[in-house]
Amino acid sequence: MKQPRFVRVALVLAILVLPSAVAAQPSEIRANADRMEQRIKALSAFGANPEGGVSRVAFSEADLAGRAYITDLMREAGLSVRMDTAGNIIGRRAGGETDLPVIMFGSHIDSVPGGGNYDGDVGVIAAIEVIQLLQDNAIRTRHSLEVVSFTDEEGGLTGSRAMLGEIGDATLNVVSHSGMTIGDGIRAVGGDPNSLDLAKRRPGEIKAFIELHIEQGAILHDEKIDIGVVEGIVGIRWWDVTIEGFANHAGTTPMNRRQDAMVSAAKFVLAVNRVATNMSGRQVATVGRMRAEPGAPNVIPGEVVLSLEIRDLSADKMQRVFDQIKEEGERIAAAHSTPIRYAEIDVASAPAPTDERIRRIIAAAADDLGLSFKFMPSGAGHDAQDMARIAPTGMIFVPSVNGVSHSPKEFTSAEDMANGASVLYRTVLEIDGGVLE
Amino acid sequence: MKQPRFVRVALVLAILVLPSAVAAQPSEIRANADRMEQRIKALSAFGANPEGGVSRVAFSEADLAGRAYITDLMREAGLSVRMDTAGNIIGRRAGGETDLPVIMFGSHIDSVPGGGNYDGDVGVIAAIEVIQLLQDNAIRTRHSLEVVSFTDEEGGLTGSRAMLGEIGDATLNVVSHSGMTIGDGIRAVGGDPNSLDLAKRRPGEIKAFIELHIEQGAILHDEKIDIGVVEGIVGIRWWDVTIEGFANHAGTTPMNRRQDAMVSAAKFVLAVNRVATNMSGRQVATVGRMRAEPGAPNVIPGEVVLSLEIRDLSADKMQRVFDQIKEEGERIAAAHSTPIRYAEIDVASAPAPTDERIRRIIAAAADDLGLSFKFMPSGAGHDAQDMARIAPTGMIFVPSVNGVSHSPKEFTSAEDMANGASVLYRTVLEIDGGVLE
Repeated sequence: MKQPRFVRVALVLAILVLPSAVAAQPSEIRANADRMEQRIKALSAFGANPEGGVSRVAFSEADLAGRAYITDLMREAGLSVRMDTAGNIIGRRAGGETDLPVIMFGSHIDSVPGGGNYDGDVGVIAAIEVIQLLQDNAIRTRHSLEVVSFTDEEGGLTGSRAMLGEIGDATLNVVSHSGMTIGDGIRAVGGDPNSLDLAKRRPGEIKAFIELHIEQGAILHDEKIDIGVVEGIVGIRWWDVTIEGFANHAGTTPMNRRQDAMVSAAKFVLAVNRVATNMSGRQVATVGRMRAEPGAPNVIPGEVVLSLEIRDLSADKMQRVFDQIKEEGERIAAAHSTPIRYAEIDVASAPAPTDERIRRIIAAAADDLGLSFKFMPSGAGHDAQDMARIAPTGMIFVPSVNGVSHSPKEFTSAEDMANGASVLYRTVLEIDGGVLE
Repeated sequence: MKQPRFVRVALVLAILVLPSAVAAQPSEIRANADRMEQRIKALSAFGANPEGGVSRVAFSEADLAGRAYITDLMREAGLSVRMDTAGNIIGRRAGGETDLPVIMFGSHIDSVPGGGNYDGDVGVIAAIEVIQLLQDNAIRTRHSLEVVSFTDEEGGLTGSRAMLGEIGDATLNVVSHSGMTIGDGIRAVGGDPNSLDLAKRRPGEIKAFIELHIEQGAILHDEKIDIGVVEGIVGIRWWDVTIEGFANHAGTTPMNRRQDAMVSAAKFVLAVNRVATNMSGRQVATVGRMRAEPGAPNVIPGEVVLSLEIRDLSADKMQRVFDQIKEEGERIAAAHSTPIRYAEIDVASAPAPTDERIRRIIAAAADDLGLSFKFMPSGAGHDAQDMARIAPTGMIFVPSVNGVSHSPKEFTSAEDMANGASVLYRTVLEIDGGVLE
């Protein structure tokens, strides 16, 4: 039911002037925690693993079953559902002004192998909940709304990258966790890898994109905060670092005659940790992998190769962290006669800041609902980082108990999910009201 | 030609009182450097690899050819050659007093894959050279002499362990570098793995065992010393050390909330190096291997398993080094909440000190020949460590250029080889003279 134009104008004015004075009716509206939890439980049946989580990797039988369930939920909520050629499930609710761009929100329902029941799922269920609330309250928006469940997020943000037009043959040939190539997987779920151009979205076509997601970290949980207002998805850079020593007999080479690549590697690991910890800010740097050659207990390592990963919201900061690590690396290399080489791996993703106005809208929505909130980066990657390149994007985090994620132990309470959905609901309505104009 | 008894007695007295006053005739005798080098070169044809070394792993075709060559050399030198059931090649030269135990000396001719031309080989060629010198100078010893070329030294001291009676079914079933099991390998060279008891030597049966070997370290080379008088073969202990952290998302976990097993492992590696370096003595401790789990660049390691190897001539010292490392490990574990567990691997070998009297004989022989010498441990394992358990044992080192070993680049000059053989010759004669009685 379309509201008369004067009501709409009054609403828009009220929102612009007094962010907390949303029209009386919508402000009473809250997401239904029971309904959301029941749906999360129903969804978790598809690909359920013995540990209580799901192994619902993209393109698997479990994924197909989960996708069918989500499609049904969308239809029940009154959405007209289509699938784009990349396999993204898109439920559309027509708005009152057909010439306006769409407001899109959603997440994904595929999981990592041995994953949990909340990563991605909460965002999709919350998006459908928003539609349900609009239906239940007979609210018609100006903009058309699109609820999206992206294809294969865990396998490399496949669905959202397709919306950017960035899935080429190399990606289609990658073997996914399902055992199928991504190309075959897209075909298996009903997409068409030969026509991915049709999945591409043009800038201007999407008014805003909002993703609600579990934090996958422990900050909200530890600080007992309801809502994370995501400032952006951090950029990631990754190097293979090679430390060259001199392989020698561990028995016949005295301690003071060694060029032990392992000892230099140990100093390097501590330098990485020290630089990232001591610099002000929220940058992180990690050595997650190390291999010593020849790798025998009785041989002094002649070479160590380790991974160095740096993440931050600022590309400049990432470079500064790397430069400082490199400087310390030079000292280590010189002190031990163990040269250090850096090979940057081409998987870097640039930092993806969210839209500052949408951050403020999310924060105000949380505040209006009496929820505590915190501005924070997302250390993990999300489809939102792709969408941020073609649309003003916002991201809402809800707490993960103990920060556990990508694990059957991952848990977010029904109340926290509903809080997030209520914030999402308000955010969508405020954007619909024209606050971004 | 047996010397009259009074000459012998005079000789023995002279040796005891004045170690440098060896009888005039033998003191003129020197090993033939050219002959030795030519034989080393001839031997290096069997299993020659493109890099200029040999890949003559035990039981291979190359090993069989090398064994045939050595057998021929032994026969040419007048030895009567037999093979024991473990495949050890034993060339015997009868002594004047048949009731006396034998004096045994030798080494091995098998190599590691991609090995060099000197490790082991020099000891066998030198032992044959000693016999050749006795033949050339028509010297008859009181004791019978046995030149030995041990089976499969590089695969785990197989031949010398068989002389101890320590090769059981488990060892026979181990697949050697040749691809054959050790049992099949012994059969392939002409031994009989079902009758290994016959290869066992009883204590008292061997008067002394002497092994000449390249140092496989750089101490003699760097210090320009001709002869190493080996004080013993160091003991080896080996642990798998497990450091337990908490695997977590490298993006979403701030630096100050990590239980990073890799950071603790790095501190542990430095503690190992510090303890072994700072304690007085020649102990060594090495971390040669490290594996992080899950081992992905984007995951904070939840577990690191690394190898810890400690070597020293004293079992007490090895324990003290371990205890101090463990103490530092406890501090690291407590500071980072990353418990550290130690699992000792059952490959420990006890320190094998050489016979102190034989050390003095070797040193005196070097001195008499105008050669510089140094008392030193052997950091590497040798057949001598087994023989030391059933016979008074001595070991003579000659320099390895730059300490390189187990590599085609391993090199010992003809002069150094001959120096070692001359020392071995004198040592055998002094023992034959009765100096150990």
